[in-house]
Amino acid sequence: MNYSVKMRAEKESRHVSGAERIVEEDELEVAASALIKRARTHVSGAADFISIKISKIHRPVQTIPALKVTQPETKNTEETKALLLSELNSLGLQGEKILDLFYSIENMRGAILLDMNTLERLEPDAERGVRVTTMDYEGNDGAQKNHFKEALCLASKAASCEYIAAELCASDDPDYTIGYFASKTRGYLRLANIKKEGRRKGGRIFLFSGKKENISKCIDFLENQPVMVRFE
Amino acid sequence: MNYSVKMRAEKESRHVSGAERIVEEDELEVAASALIKRARTHVSGAADFISIKISKIHRPVQTIPALKVTQPETKNTEETKALLLSELNSLGLQGEKILDLFYSIENMRGAILLDMNTLERLEPDAERGVRVTTMDYEGNDGAQKNHFKEALCLASKAASCEYIAAELCASDDPDYTIGYFASKTRGYLRLANIKKEGRRKGGRIFLFSGKKENISKCIDFLENQPVMVRFE
Repeated sequence: MNYSVKMRAEKESRHVSGAERIVEEDELEVAASALIKRARTHVSGAADFISIKISKIHRPVQTIPALKVTQPETKNTEETKALLLSELNSLGLQGEKILDLFYSIENMRGAILLDMNTLERLEPDAERGVRVTTMDYEGNDGAQKNHFKEALCLASKAASCEYIAAELCASDDPDYTIGYFASKTRGYLRLANIKKEGRRKGGRIFLFSGKKENISKCIDFLENQPVMVRFE
Repeated sequence: MNYSVKMRAEKESRHVSGAERIVEEDELEVAASALIKRARTHVSGAADFISIKISKIHRPVQTIPALKVTQPETKNTEETKALLLSELNSLGLQGEKILDLFYSIENMRGAILLDMNTLERLEPDAERGVRVTTMDYEGNDGAQKNHFKEALCLASKAASCEYIAAELCASDDPDYTIGYFASKTRGYLRLANIKKEGRRKGGRIFLFSGKKENISKCIDFLENQPVMVRFE
């Protein structure tokens, strides 16, 4: 029997840390302890509030391979934007309009779900956005943050959804300027200089491909389908 | 620095277990693990949802002695009720009316806060009632339920509140017929046969002594003042 373990931590009422695991019942205590330790020793200082939620998983866990990673070289944000434009256009998407939206996102808690054809935003709650949760990757012990593996885990889960054509992501951490573009066909393109250093704005867009009646199935998959990602 | 650790567990959306600790920061992981294990191995079957909330405690923790325990012998519920009546009356309280209320409580989540003179109910939310939380006792490791010590810990905290004259308590567990009457002057009277076996109704009444303007101070003490109880 599998369990989802989700941790979120606050300091002075501000979110400072979040992480999750999928584990067997006999691993619950160890997994929760590691997540608590992680929140206690966060770089932004020890959390003063930590929530751990453990829920039995009723659906079978899907194990999927991680997307193949490539790192195209781009020397500055102009080159990265040009590359993104060409990647989007080559998938038959309206690259310019999508990038305009991507670089104008004011920080929102979740991601944008964008109809790939009409460019209509499909999130039921635009402020909350959609989230990708209930996932883990093999070899994770939850003890410390691994930016790259966590991003690849999330992107791999999302790309495995039949209704997601592609994803664009940049962190809101002003010091972290590596982002990615992910899709089933092109894998995970890890992109330096996706934004300028010091920029606090980040964001995530999922490009939805499908009929409107499948939006809720898509969001349910992203949020609730338990997925374990296997790295090669 | 002290932290409050609170666990609550559900099975099929019904509350099955709850417990709490007050610990130092370096004990957090061990304390949380013990509470998770407790929820996993509860007599009603493993919980399918467990929540752990860890909050830094900003007020100084008060350490208080446990109430002195005596166990008057009563052979049946009639004798226990007679004893309760005499105890209440000897404190100058309206014993009969208070017992009528005590034995008519439909299960509520928290306790009744009753004005000892007017017998007016003072809980801001009658369905929720008032609760006694943010407490622990020395020697507790949280690993398994100790009905008696947990009840004595709670009663000792409540009795140490300047606005609480006395407390009456019976469990809603149909198999657990031991209850208690507690007050500063008489200590903790552990009472067999406080109800008949099989009876599902239980309840808790705190007798409030004080002016109306102190009700919120009283409730704040019961809910939020961190208290560590020392057993002899």
